[in-house]
Amino acid sequence: MGFKINNLAKIMRVLRDRDGDCVMVTSPANRLYATGFESSAGVALVTRDRAWFFTDSRYFESAAAAIEGAEIRQVSGHNGYSDAINAIISELGLRRVGFEDERVTCSEYEVWRTRLKAPLFAVSALLGRLRSVKSAAELEAMKRAQRVAERSFEQILPLINRDISEKELAAELIYRFLRNGADDKSFDPIVVSGTRSSMPHGVPTDHKIQDGFLTIDFGVRVDGWCSDTTRTLCVGEPTHEMLRVYATVLRAQLRGIETARAGVTGREVDGAARAVIDEAGYGGYFGHGFGHGLGLEVHEQPNASEANDKPLPHGAVISAEPGIYLPGRFGVRIEDVLYITEDGSENITSLPKELTVV
Amino acid sequence: MGFKINNLAKIMRVLRDRDGDCVMVTSPANRLYATGFESSAGVALVTRDRAWFFTDSRYFESAAAAIEGAEIRQVSGHNGYSDAINAIISELGLRRVGFEDERVTCSEYEVWRTRLKAPLFAVSALLGRLRSVKSAAELEAMKRAQRVAERSFEQILPLINRDISEKELAAELIYRFLRNGADDKSFDPIVVSGTRSSMPHGVPTDHKIQDGFLTIDFGVRVDGWCSDTTRTLCVGEPTHEMLRVYATVLRAQLRGIETARAGVTGREVDGAARAVIDEAGYGGYFGHGFGHGLGLEVHEQPNASEANDKPLPHGAVISAEPGIYLPGRFGVRIEDVLYITEDGSENITSLPKELTVV
Repeated sequence: MGFKINNLAKIMRVLRDRDGDCVMVTSPANRLYATGFESSAGVALVTRDRAWFFTDSRYFESAAAAIEGAEIRQVSGHNGYSDAINAIISELGLRRVGFEDERVTCSEYEVWRTRLKAPLFAVSALLGRLRSVKSAAELEAMKRAQRVAERSFEQILPLINRDISEKELAAELIYRFLRNGADDKSFDPIVVSGTRSSMPHGVPTDHKIQDGFLTIDFGVRVDGWCSDTTRTLCVGEPTHEMLRVYATVLRAQLRGIETARAGVTGREVDGAARAVIDEAGYGGYFGHGFGHGLGLEVHEQPNASEANDKPLPHGAVISAEPGIYLPGRFGVRIEDVLYITEDGSENITSLPKELTVV
Repeated sequence: MGFKINNLAKIMRVLRDRDGDCVMVTSPANRLYATGFESSAGVALVTRDRAWFFTDSRYFESAAAAIEGAEIRQVSGHNGYSDAINAIISELGLRRVGFEDERVTCSEYEVWRTRLKAPLFAVSALLGRLRSVKSAAELEAMKRAQRVAERSFEQILPLINRDISEKELAAELIYRFLRNGADDKSFDPIVVSGTRSSMPHGVPTDHKIQDGFLTIDFGVRVDGWCSDTTRTLCVGEPTHEMLRVYATVLRAQLRGIETARAGVTGREVDGAARAVIDEAGYGGYFGHGFGHGLGLEVHEQPNASEANDKPLPHGAVISAEPGIYLPGRFGVRIEDVLYITEDGSENITSLPKELTVV
C-alpha cells in the first residue's frame, strides 16, 4: 500500500499565488488528481496550506492509508459533506469556496449553494490547467499504461484473420488489457475493417474482418492513467492508392510531431500535419483535430487542434493522430502519444508504424 | 437496421398533460431513452406533438435510419445546437424549454441560458419518473441482458479454483460478456473472496480465490439496457455459521420479494427483508438498501430502500439484494431483478440460489 502520488501541494500553491481561499473537489477524476485516491464518494477540500478528505465509512480506512498531506474525516447522513465543509469555513474564516463548474450539475449546485455558509466560485478552468502539465511521476504512470496497451495489441495480432469479427477482435483486446494488468479500457476500442475503416468513430460490428485496411484505436487505464493508440494494418495486399494514403498520414503525423514543442500553439501543430494532407490532395478527408490532451481522462487539455491558439505547455501530454477517411472506400489513422518538452517531444508510444500486412 | 423502440410519444403525452412546452434532452442516457439512438453527440427536442433530433455529420445518417417520429437535422459549428433550437422556439412560439437539471453542468447551463431565446426550467424529475416505468418491449430488452449475463456467469463457474485471482476471474467474466453479445459491462464486476467477501463494494484484487465465501456481483449492457445480479458461492466446505448467514440472507430476499408489488413503498419492501435479518441477530450488518431501480442505467428510480416512502409503480424494475457482512470474517449477498406488477413481481433472474459449493 503506502501513499499515492497526489497534487494537493500544487493546488495549494495556485491558491496562494491567486489569493484564493479554497477549492472543493467533488468529481471522481479531479478527486483522483488531487488526492491520488480513487473512490465513488468523497470530497477533497484544499485551502492554501491545509487539505481534508471527507468520505463515508466504506472508504475511510483505505483513504487514510493512501492519501498523504490531508486530514481524513468520515462523514455520514444527508448533510454530512456540507456540515463538514461548513465547520472548516467557520474555523478558518473562508470567504468563498471554489467548485467544479464543469462537473457539478445544476441540481447539485443548488444543494451546495443552499447548504454552504460561503459563496461558490468557478474553478474548473484552474484545475484543467493544472492537470494539463504532467509531473515526472505522472508521465511514468502514463508510460506504464501505454506499455500494457501495446503488449495487449501485439498479443491479438496473431488472431487477425477473415474468420474473426470486429466485435470478437475487440473482445480479445479488452480481455488482454485486463489480463495484462489494466484496471479497464480507457474507452471502447474502435475496430473497423474494409470499407468501414473510413469511419473515424466506427463501432465494432459482427462483420468478419475484411480485406483492406483494419484500424484499431485502443487504450487502457492503469492506476487511473489513460493510454491511447491507433494502428492501421492491412489485410491482404494494399493497392497503390492505399499505400499512398498510408504514407501521407504517416508523413503528416511525423510533421506534426516535429512541430510540437512547448510554446508552439495547438493550431500550429495541427496546421503542420494538415498541410501535408492538403498538399497530397486529401484536404477534405481529415475531419478531426491532430490531437487531444490525455491523462486521468482520455480527453483533457490541451488540444492540438485548429481551435487551440494557446501555446502548449512544457509537460503536456497529447495524442498525435492525423487520418484520411475516404467515404465508402477506406481510411487510415495513426496515433502516438507525445510528452511535450522545451526541445520538442518524447514519443511514449513504441509500436512500429511501417504498414503491417496481415 | 430499422427503427428502434423510443419514448418520444410518452414525453409528448406528459407535456400535454402538464401544459409543458418542450423538453431538450441532452444527456446520453436520456437521449437513448427518448430516441432509442445511442450517440456521443446530439440533442433531442420534444414538444407536445413534434420532435427533432439534432446531431453532427458523424451520426446524421444512422440517426435518420434509427429514430422514428422525429425530424433529424444535421448541425455544425459552435452555435449549431442553440441556433437549431432557437429556430424551433421562434417557429412554434415556445415559452420555455425544459432542461436536465440533474445532468447539465453549471458551465453548460450558462451556455444554454445565454444562447437560447426562451427561459429554461428543470425537468430531470419528470424524465426520471417516466423512465421508472418500463414498457413490455423494455422489459424484454432487460431480460435479454439478464440472459447474457447469466450465461457468462455459468461459463466461468468451471474456472473457479484456488489458482485464479479475483482480478483474473473478473477478466474471464467480462470477456464472456463481450463474447456472448453484450455491448459492455454495466459496472465493474465485484469479485471478492474469503474475508474480502465482507466488503459490499470490494474491488477485485490480485489475491487468489480463497476458501470461504466468494461473492460475484455483475451486470452487462445489451442495446443500452442493464442487468445486475449477485451470487455468493462457497469455496470449500461452509461452517455452520456460514450456512446460517446464507440462509438468513436468502430468507430476507424471499421476504422482500413477497412484499414487493405496485403500491407498496420502497421502505416497506426494504423493511420486510430487514426484519428477517434483524430477527436472526444480524441487524447491524446489512448496511445498504434492499434494492435500486435499473434500466438504461444500473442505478435509477425507484429505490427499494428506507429513504423511499413512495409507492412502487407498476412496471418498475428493481434489484432485490439484501446482504450480511461480518467485518474481517465473511459476507453474503444475493441479488435478483424484479419487474413490479399489481399482483407482486416477476423475477427476471433465473440463476439458482441454493448455496453452490465449489
